[in-house]
Amino acid sequence: MSSQQASSSSPKRKVGILGATGTVGQRFILLLTAHPDFEIHALGASSSSAGKSYAKAVAGRWKQAKAVPANVRDLIVQECTVPNFKDCDVVFSGLDSGPAGPVESSFREADLRVFSNAKNYRMDPVCPLVVPLVNPGHFDIIPHQRATLSPSPKKGFIITNANCSTTGIVVPLKALQDAFGPLDKIMVSTMQAISGAGYPGLSSFDIHDNVVPYISGEEEKIESETAKILGDLSKDNNSFVNAPVTVSAHCNRVPVIDGHTECVSLSFQRRPPPSIEQVQAALRNYVCDAQKLGCHSAPAQTIEVHDEPDRPQPRLDRDWQNGAGVNVGRVRDCKIFDVRFVVLSNNVQIGAATSSVMNAEIALKKGYLD
Amino acid sequence: MSSQQASSSSPKRKVGILGATGTVGQRFILLLTAHPDFEIHALGASSSSAGKSYAKAVAGRWKQAKAVPANVRDLIVQECTVPNFKDCDVVFSGLDSGPAGPVESSFREADLRVFSNAKNYRMDPVCPLVVPLVNPGHFDIIPHQRATLSPSPKKGFIITNANCSTTGIVVPLKALQDAFGPLDKIMVSTMQAISGAGYPGLSSFDIHDNVVPYISGEEEKIESETAKILGDLSKDNNSFVNAPVTVSAHCNRVPVIDGHTECVSLSFQRRPPPSIEQVQAALRNYVCDAQKLGCHSAPAQTIEVHDEPDRPQPRLDRDWQNGAGVNVGRVRDCKIFDVRFVVLSNNVQIGAATSSVMNAEIALKKGYLD
Amino acid sequence: MSSQQASSSSPKRKVGILGATGTVGQRFILLLTAHPDFEIHALGASSSSAGKSYAKAVAGRWKQAKAVPANVRDLIVQECTVPNFKDCDVVFSGLDSGPAGPVESSFREADLRVFSNAKNYRMDPVCPLVVPLVNPGHFDIIPHQRATLSPSPKKGFIITNANCSTTGIVVPLKALQDAFGPLDKIMVSTMQAISGAGYPGLSSFDIHDNVVPYISGEEEKIESETAKILGDLSKDNNSFVNAPVTVSAHCNRVPVIDGHTECVSLSFQRRPPPSIEQVQAALRNYVCDAQKLGCHSAPAQTIEVHDEPDRPQPRLDRDWQNGAGVNVGRVRDCKIFDVRFVVLSNNVQIGAATSSVMNAEIALKKGYLD
Amino acid sequence: MSSQQASSSSPKRKVGILGATGTVGQRFILLLTAHPDFEIHALGASSSSAGKSYAKAVAGRWKQAKAVPANVRDLIVQECTVPNFKDCDVVFSGLDSGPAGPVESSFREADLRVFSNAKNYRMDPVCPLVVPLVNPGHFDIIPHQRATLSPSPKKGFIITNANCSTTGIVVPLKALQDAFGPLDKIMVSTMQAISGAGYPGLSSFDIHDNVVPYISGEEEKIESETAKILGDLSKDNNSFVNAPVTVSAHCNRVPVIDGHTECVSLSFQRRPPPSIEQVQAALRNYVCDAQKLGCHSAPAQTIEVHDEPDRPQPRLDRDWQNGAGVNVGRVRDCKIFDVRFVVLSNNVQIGAATSSVMNAEIALKKGYLD
Repeated sequence: MSSQQASSSSPKRKVGILGATGTVGQRFILLLTAHPDFEIHALGASSSSAGKSYAKAVAGRWKQAKAVPANVRDLIVQECTVPNFKDCDVVFSGLDSGPAGPVESSFREADLRVFSNAKNYRMDPVCPLVVPLVNPGHFDIIPHQRATLSPSPKKGFIITNANCSTTGIVVPLKALQDAFGPLDKIMVSTMQAISGAGYPGLSSFDIHDNVVPYISGEEEKIESETAKILGDLSKDNNSFVNAPVTVSAHCNRVPVIDGHTECVSLSFQRRPPPSIEQVQAALRNYVCDAQKLGCHSAPAQTIEVHDEPDRPQPRLDRDWQNGAGVNVGRVRDCKIFDVRFVVLSNNVQIGAATSSVMNAEIALKKGYLD
Repeated sequence: MSSQQASSSSPKRKVGILGATGTVGQRFILLLTAHPDFEIHALGASSSSAGKSYAKAVAGRWKQAKAVPANVRDLIVQECTVPNFKDCDVVFSGLDSGPAGPVESSFREADLRVFSNAKNYRMDPVCPLVVPLVNPGHFDIIPHQRATLSPSPKKGFIITNANCSTTGIVVPLKALQDAFGPLDKIMVSTMQAISGAGYPGLSSFDIHDNVVPYISGEEEKIESETAKILGDLSKDNNSFVNAPVTVSAHCNRVPVIDGHTECVSLSFQRRPPPSIEQVQAALRNYVCDAQKLGCHSAPAQTIEVHDEPDRPQPRLDRDWQNGAGVNVGRVRDCKIFDVRFVVLSNNVQIGAATSSVMNAEIALKKGYLD
Repeated sequence: MSSQQASSSSPKRKVGILGATGTVGQRFILLLTAHPDFEIHALGASSSSAGKSYAKAVAGRWKQAKAVPANVRDLIVQECTVPNFKDCDVVFSGLDSGPAGPVESSFREADLRVFSNAKNYRMDPVCPLVVPLVNPGHFDIIPHQRATLSPSPKKGFIITNANCSTTGIVVPLKALQDAFGPLDKIMVSTMQAISGAGYPGLSSFDIHDNVVPYISGEEEKIESETAKILGDLSKDNNSFVNAPVTVSAHCNRVPVIDGHTECVSLSFQRRPPPSIEQVQAALRNYVCDAQKLGCHSAPAQTIEVHDEPDRPQPRLDRDWQNGAGVNVGRVRDCKIFDVRFVVLSNNVQIGAATSSVMNAEIALKKGYLD
Repeated sequence: MSSQQASSSSPKRKVGILGATGTVGQRFILLLTAHPDFEIHALGASSSSAGKSYAKAVAGRWKQAKAVPANVRDLIVQECTVPNFKDCDVVFSGLDSGPAGPVESSFREADLRVFSNAKNYRMDPVCPLVVPLVNPGHFDIIPHQRATLSPSPKKGFIITNANCSTTGIVVPLKALQDAFGPLDKIMVSTMQAISGAGYPGLSSFDIHDNVVPYISGEEEKIESETAKILGDLSKDNNSFVNAPVTVSAHCNRVPVIDGHTECVSLSFQRRPPPSIEQVQAALRNYVCDAQKLGCHSAPAQTIEVHDEPDRPQPRLDRDWQNGAGVNVGRVRDCKIFDVRFVVLSNNVQIGAATSSVMNAEIALKKGYLD
């Protein structure tokens, strides 16, 4: 049986969710509750939640517009240790960076497959940093990742997805790189949503009627992650070769609940650069691998290019395709770089949980869950 | 009597306000109600307001935290025609760009001195575009401005102040240009306040929980006005010589009531560029001409440089010095340009009415109101 | 064929939408685009839109999170006159109260069935004011409504739905009246969403970081509409008998995009009054007629009663059941009246377009569209 | 020397501030920095801040639009123990309710005068609960308060001010009680500002684009405090006699930074009740004792009665008289009670720190600081 047919005829794969009571964990639960390929098998959280039913563990902390799904209400939350998840085919991690490092590592050692939303292993030289709309080819370092460990896991690995503000911009950047060759310089200024900070996250006193022109560590993440994601694997699939781009970011928090808006100016290595019409066409025509593979959560269209002068806008466009695609607008000449545009991505969907889930769907299609 | 002593011993100059019922006009009234140099003499608005007391004309439209000042409540609003303002020593214009063009021109022809907040004459080759914290030297084109008209006014002129988003950035740019020589490239991404759009301005439906990544004409204004303001007068004081800068702007509206936040990256012509410490010192040490001249509305310090990593912020910093100074923070290296920083300016004070009033104070000190 | 089977086997009824470019009209389009009983046949708007494709007519005014549906993009918008809608089985009116009066009346005279969201005929002595979750029995005045006209229409009528803030509270009020007999006094204080004011509606300058403790005409609407909706038809179905309730309202606008929150205190005529537990049970057990009839848009549960102390909340609960149900929370004793609670309803769904559409579904089930 | 002359000729009284790093403490500092009667002598906070300069202790937590005043920047923060404050003539407490109970009690035992913003002693049978615009006469229980303690302090006492939402409404209630005799029933529904919850207080995730219809303990505070504040001292000044009012409150949090808006409906015992015009006149003519005594922080007018139908509004009216007065609007008939109106008060000024400071000013004038 080919992996392409997995989702229709195979039994569903058992999944565990680490950090299940947090905001990313809550999103994992909503995405996986009625998923054709996966079924929720185990929920992990801190020791203060362990032993409680999920409904009790999240009482007062469930902040979703949909109620706690019936299939997890009575599931008992467990501590994030290997024995509690040993039957899981896939483990999604929504852990904070504190516990994520040792927990995810121990899970991999125990031959578990970890799809992590945490930052800890993103820049690791053998861990893929995969935005599913961009670089699922990086999965091919997995055999090498296993080989570097002793003992070498047979099935286990760690795959990470990117920071939410990186995720938004690399999608159009990849479309342009595919069409016109290497990019050179990328200037980005972000206006990021409240939900990106988790819960309780920002004090309302800090962000109400305000802009906070600083998010700790965020500019560094965009500047480093982008080159890895846009880069290639080496020919022997043993290392990452960064894309030759220079990225400079200004990161800001604005009073918007969901949806990161990012202003991008960039130059190409190619001279002369492509025209605005060519850039727009390349963005519109980009088809990501997740679409080609027929993944359940993949958007039907990867990038929506808006013609109206004042779009995309977070409140109107963040839920396009359940937040799985990326919106681009205002594609125009730049006085300093080659082209300017605005990107809007849903930071809690494609910018977080949806990326992890789509990565697992891709891994399934590619046979990495066999 | 020297003009330097004017404010202490002279009788107050009579001022008229055009567009007195609008948001900029309301600010003019608050700034001029207890001013040591000026007294409100005439108020002008559209024909629908003319003939009413000011209190009645603004009923339901007065949107200030302070009540309508007692001294203007019963003043009768008049149409914006020359005869109604012929006794005014100074006329402040808060007119919309539609009527501003012909009205301001007719007032100048009638030998009236016009300080305009409208965009119409900003890029005019004989009209000064003056940010009072930056380039009051441009007033010296006034004799030539008069000479180009026939008949040539004896006292009349038009002086404009800049667009609110331009005003914020040119202050630190000027400080750096003074200290380190010509700037080269300037990239700016703005997060502009609701009040910048006037009243009723933006629909709440458009900006609530949202970002609008577009403000009509705004990017063009920043890109053109900056070079004029940072430039010089020719030696014969007959023309403007633009500064050799290239500016590229992304302009965005965010849900903040007052205060424009702007992320700036720039490069100097000078190699090597100044260090971050030198840049910070130049910003801190900058003293604008309005301060040196002792103008009433001038800030005691032109630029506040914040050391905290998350400042300036509009809600906390926009009222620093009654909004007459400019806040700068996060001065740091840029991966692409030489330096990055954040600017916050009060768009309704220094970005609008305060600039016009301070320009008139400078003109008084320099003898242009004699 | 019984009307009960209409929706499964009949061809879809042709519907027209008046005021199709406005905010209520846009909602009608989204609700009716894939409706099992109805298909959009004609769109009406003002003369400035007439003759344009719908997509062009709403360019820059379409403010929905979903794109303009494909089936109406190219439909030509027409003026709101009878000849343009004569083939419609049902006409939904999202007109402003200015044109709504004469237009709706002329449509009824031309034997068209009008479901109106406008206020004009709500208090008319022969027009039903129907909240579909509350009083569809009022449809039975339709024969008398026709009989009062000369010539008497065979099929035509006007049915109205209630003001958005009235709609929210009458649902739990009806549940309590059904369970415990007549209510006596009802005190309500509202916190209403921005979207209730339409587009452009409120200036952002007025509602940002603010509360406006006044909505023109709103308190009067709640105070009068409630008694009509909770009342009965006379035995001969020729007149409305108001419920013997006294209502006092404080209406406020708050910075929330969708969802009206209303604090209610009420007393029953019955002594002793029911206990809090009885009140909660009556709310939970209430099943509206639209549910019983199996209407497509009816909620599966009419009222959700929250046990958490801090719910319902507009951002979390307004989309429950696509906004077709009503949320109640904090049911508790009142120090002055018998019981206190909080109601949340989705003002743009059950509070507006969803009510009209559900009324038409009920009319279909009851045979009034035959 | 009479106490009336104290402020002009006496040396300033030394004041200590407990909880100086919190939000109420920060307000105390701003109010007392340039006060004619008081000078800041000692600052107290938790042990984690003790030993640091005030500027260092509040780094990252100072959330005021004005900078940390120069006179306290270098003051060393101390633990909240008696020895550190023994030289203080007055101690202001902005402590949380946890530590406030034992700390304030120990300070009183050590003969210190405590003006507390905490809730602990508000309902204490010998502690005055004083809103300075309403009931400074309650100070006269102080001798009895001392007499109940053993050993009895010579100078020490505890005076509390009210909860912020209570403070707003009792001012107009007192004006009406003074004019028309006892009130009967009072229904209030609040829309309270974010800042009322302190810092970090509410998560932005909870209140952005939202209403929270619940504030823990708030309704109970309004319902109990109002009767004590509107009541009298017994003739022997040994106990409080509550006013015979019944209060029912709905308390809500709305996304507004400062300013509590409260909708009030009330009935008088007197039949027939006063007319709307009489009610408006009574509110306008009310002069509080703090004004009569000439206290520094007293408003020049206690209550502003707005005639515009849509005022007061928090963003426009909260800073009237530096937030020391109370705004009332929409005075009108109620369908159920005698009269309805809207109250707006500044919760961080008269609703918190300003009340404590004004209470101390009154105590000074009345000789209780001698």
